[in-house]
Amino acid sequence: MKLVIGDKFNSSWSMRPWVLLKHFGIPFEETLIRLGQPDTKAKILEVSPSGKVPCLITDAGDSVWESLAIVETIAEAHPEHAMWPRDAALRARARSISAEMHAGFADLRENMPMEITTRAPGAGATPGAGATPGALANIARIEAIWAECLAKSGGPFLFGEFGIADAMFAPVVMRFNTYAPELSATSLDYAKRVTALPAVAAWIDGAREEAR
Amino acid sequence: MKLVIGDKFNSSWSMRPWVLLKHFGIPFEETLIRLGQPDTKAKILEVSPSGKVPCLITDAGDSVWESLAIVETIAEAHPEHAMWPRDAALRARARSISAEMHAGFADLRENMPMEITTRAPGAGATPGAGATPGALANIARIEAIWAECLAKSGGPFLFGEFGIADAMFAPVVMRFNTYAPELSATSLDYAKRVTALPAVAAWIDGAREEAR
Repeated sequence: MKLVIGDKFNSSWSMRPWVLLKHFGIPFEETLIRLGQPDTKAKILEVSPSGKVPCLITDAGDSVWESLAIVETIAEAHPEHAMWPRDAALRARARSISAEMHAGFADLRENMPMEITTRAPGAGATPGAGATPGALANIARIEAIWAECLAKSGGPFLFGEFGIADAMFAPVVMRFNTYAPELSATSLDYAKRVTALPAVAAWIDGAREEAR
Repeated sequence: MKLVIGDKFNSSWSMRPWVLLKHFGIPFEETLIRLGQPDTKAKILEVSPSGKVPCLITDAGDSVWESLAIVETIAEAHPEHAMWPRDAALRARARSISAEMHAGFADLRENMPMEITTRAPGAGATPGAGATPGALANIARIEAIWAECLAKSGGPFLFGEFGIADAMFAPVVMRFNTYAPELSATSLDYAKRVTALPAVAAWIDGAREEAR
């Protein structure tokens, strides 16, 4: 199995399935295509029909693209791991918030791009410092999602143990680490736990290596 | 089971799970919240934490939101129906194109909004008549997806029989019916088959009723 990704510094979509595979110890080959180069688009189109990363290449040689389709495919292939919650109602909720992340929060994504090793507290994240009302509304909605999930599950992750829903929100945590918006203690604690997870720490280390 | 939807005239996200449930004959209660009214947002927030439709309310009273999470939940609850292809590789492909639809094609969605009963051939759909390069690129990508799936499956639908992937693209067919962009014969034939599907025709009838 091969996962084609973009730069660890800023390819937030690539981070999601990569962290999931790492966390659950599923072996995979990694191919990194540098974004923003003259040949980036051609290189991606060789493997990913949508022209975007990430893209999973199965052992049979099939391409699976879009982070959400990739994580569903991985979860199905590894029923021994509870990547989605085992309980059907919780699984439906985990899928709801993961799909909401997948298709939503456009203002946040535009206003506070993932740049793992950048530290720019306040930039784009606070009123009067470039944050749009849309980005602030996105942050409020994300905090509400996290608070509700953590209250119901008791933590340490959204549905108890780390799973797909947490992987989907991991790049948001990276953005919060960079731009340091005002957050509740609950959100800050959750963000710290995600950041400290070995699989997430390994991705961050990779981004640091790129920066050298 | 209850499905909360917006107007059939223009709630493209609501159309997807509604058509899926109808096509497979799964009984459900329908609650329609008129969009664009002063109390729309409050009414939706009563049932859907994301503030958006569609929202599925399970028999246990749980809310499931985002079209993709709703269709996954329905598919899981009804393994007797092949809503996703039975073959794992085809299922991964169906999920890839469904997720691409779920999070992508923003230019198409903005430039050619779903308005079921409107007929405005050329508006927003052809160069020089308001279509952006982005919308035209979206149309080209959709045609490529359809052509590849139909060539591989032999039709009549993307993966043989009608399923989730077709439901995800049904609102695109409605847009093509309204704006009549230049399309290949393959795309036009597929669009005709989707439009004629009894479940899709029932949704269109509903939109006509609203317009009276």
